[in-house]
Amino acid sequence: MKEISGGVCAPKGFRAGGIWCGIKAGSKKRDLGLIYSEKLCTAAAMFTTNIVKAASVIVSREHLADGKLRAVIANSGNANACTGEAGLRASRRMAELTAEEFALRNEDVAVASTGVIGVPLPIAVIESAVTSLANSLQGDAAGHEAALEAIMTTDIRKKDGAVEVVIDGVTVKLGGMVKGSGMIHPNMATMLCFITSDAAISREMLDKALRSAVKHSFNRVTVDGDTSTNDTILVMANGMAGNNLIDKDGPAYDAFAEALESLCVKMARAMARDGEGATKLVTVSVTGAADEDTAEALAKSVASSSLVKAACFGADANWGRVLCALGYAGKDFDPEKVDVSFSGDAGEILVCRSGASVSFSEDEAKKILSAEEIGIKVSMGKGPGSAVAWGCDLSYDYVKINGDYRS
Amino acid sequence: MKEISGGVCAPKGFRAGGIWCGIKAGSKKRDLGLIYSEKLCTAAAMFTTNIVKAASVIVSREHLADGKLRAVIANSGNANACTGEAGLRASRRMAELTAEEFALRNEDVAVASTGVIGVPLPIAVIESAVTSLANSLQGDAAGHEAALEAIMTTDIRKKDGAVEVVIDGVTVKLGGMVKGSGMIHPNMATMLCFITSDAAISREMLDKALRSAVKHSFNRVTVDGDTSTNDTILVMANGMAGNNLIDKDGPAYDAFAEALESLCVKMARAMARDGEGATKLVTVSVTGAADEDTAEALAKSVASSSLVKAACFGADANWGRVLCALGYAGKDFDPEKVDVSFSGDAGEILVCRSGASVSFSEDEAKKILSAEEIGIKVSMGKGPGSAVAWGCDLSYDYVKINGDYRS
Repeated sequence: MKEISGGVCAPKGFRAGGIWCGIKAGSKKRDLGLIYSEKLCTAAAMFTTNIVKAASVIVSREHLADGKLRAVIANSGNANACTGEAGLRASRRMAELTAEEFALRNEDVAVASTGVIGVPLPIAVIESAVTSLANSLQGDAAGHEAALEAIMTTDIRKKDGAVEVVIDGVTVKLGGMVKGSGMIHPNMATMLCFITSDAAISREMLDKALRSAVKHSFNRVTVDGDTSTNDTILVMANGMAGNNLIDKDGPAYDAFAEALESLCVKMARAMARDGEGATKLVTVSVTGAADEDTAEALAKSVASSSLVKAACFGADANWGRVLCALGYAGKDFDPEKVDVSFSGDAGEILVCRSGASVSFSEDEAKKILSAEEIGIKVSMGKGPGSAVAWGCDLSYDYVKINGDYRS
Repeated sequence: MKEISGGVCAPKGFRAGGIWCGIKAGSKKRDLGLIYSEKLCTAAAMFTTNIVKAASVIVSREHLADGKLRAVIANSGNANACTGEAGLRASRRMAELTAEEFALRNEDVAVASTGVIGVPLPIAVIESAVTSLANSLQGDAAGHEAALEAIMTTDIRKKDGAVEVVIDGVTVKLGGMVKGSGMIHPNMATMLCFITSDAAISREMLDKALRSAVKHSFNRVTVDGDTSTNDTILVMANGMAGNNLIDKDGPAYDAFAEALESLCVKMARAMARDGEGATKLVTVSVTGAADEDTAEALAKSVASSSLVKAACFGADANWGRVLCALGYAGKDFDPEKVDVSFSGDAGEILVCRSGASVSFSEDEAKKILSAEEIGIKVSMGKGPGSAVAWGCDLSYDYVKINGDYRS
């Protein structure tokens, strides 16, 4: 497996594009994007678990029922959530407009939206723009970048990637993009993630690979259940690489799943790093827990603690907050077996052994915690379970961004 | 029932005091407090559910085993949590020093601590100060205030109250104080709450009344499970009012329980209002839910959403975030039956009907949300369940306070 360039356009047969159509009325930033495959794709997706679901989620779920897709159209600037019947009609119309443009079935187009909740989606401006959008498609990195820009809201950095892996002697590629920036506390802004691949893979195995990859990547950033109304992750595989169809467990599936997970982890880390107002990526590693689920719950509890995040922002070696966050994770453990270290470019420093203070240099700890990437390493004892969770620090800018986002 | 002055010294037979002994080394703010009863009290308490428990919690739990107390000694500036065997010895020593001063049994003294986690408690400075502390006791509002100041950390306002109620023709008094300020997100700083009463009441009924009062007050501020290592709420009743012993359900118990709940609600609201960096008290009322537990979960989900809090800070009528927070509360409901209004001094405004936008004046909404006390009223449909939760907004100062608290 190696990293390559080109994002969602790296796999064979995919084109992408993005334009400004006027949903983001105040700026001229791109707000409408499209990813298109020459051939019908096997598709798998996961959506928000929020009871309140955006119209786009409802429509995409219907269109994914047969596990097939040719295209996904997405807008930013408006979430099309809490918009009633008119919102549903608007999402259906987005799919229909795309289908008409390329002579596809409506059901082969997925729809995604992100932005403000509760404001009617201005479907008229999308209607006027779909032909331009279709004409903007490109099968290269520029097409990928334009589509990615079109789904960004408060995101600062572009979060994407692509990998290639040889399966049964055939080179298979995967590419992806993700938007999502309100990750500093997990109940935040929409995550949209689109992944393309030219692999030939059955729907069942694609679905299995996606669920496994998400569990070890995005779900280690976003705490389960604390999802927005619009969260969507979607993978489309068009089979154009020419590999033998992956339709069962085995080395071919493992190679594909590993590549997918690697791509998802890269994007998940980038998403945590790009949290709203974040200045630092915080990686929490838990080892020695009773099992993986316990380790995951503990790691996520630390990564999502506002007090731990604020301490990371201030480069304050406040390990007591780490223990406190472990303690309310809802998992049983012996506090007197817990060790905690902080790590960064400047090295690693043990700050708590057996649940109690050890003497350490505050200056050295400050230096370590001043890095842009910080590690919080927790050892729970002698259990076999380990997990990693990703978060970011809590800065003044988070409050600034969210204090008046809508206006 | 009516409100009275005097705090924990309002009921007969209680004295209180607080001094600076040197735990808060950097300031000369009071850091050691004591509440003392002339007569042996029936006592009930609830402690943190965090797996990581402060030494003071472990010791107080032991001392409460027989349901009797004469005094509680508390310090701020050091949580005495994650401090190992030495920490346990220090907490036991605090109780012992108090017991020696007043010739009590060690087990009749409770201990509480709040402050930084993981730093050894400087027991020597407490040893030197206990006699002065005992000498400082006063049976009036001044004694109450001194004790209250001694348990405050980042608290800005004093949070206390007292009520009297006539039970069987006898006037019974209750008084309380609480500290706890990191409530802007619920996994925060320690809450310590001490309540005194001169009621004669059995341990079983006192315990029942406390649990019920806490469910409808402090637990509507702090989300369950997200508790600090030190959280403690303690009620002591010395029987000196001379009422007939309350030892069963009935009008006498009801009158006492109502007075206790009223006192707790007052302090809980004050605690939310005094959240770290908070500029506003946010009261979330949910009606029409399937049952009370559902209503409570929904109300707390809204009150603890960072995005809702940040919107309150910005006086931004972002009702979509309210719906989003309802949606991930883990309770089932029909989004299309949800109405949302905002209220404040300036009036009330409907912003969402049947799960969708209604047209409203942004200027009027801004005015309403600019008040110091904001209401978010949510109607879920036609169910019988209702509940209120209290929170506060999320401001720049929260980050400031928590970014470098320890240093």
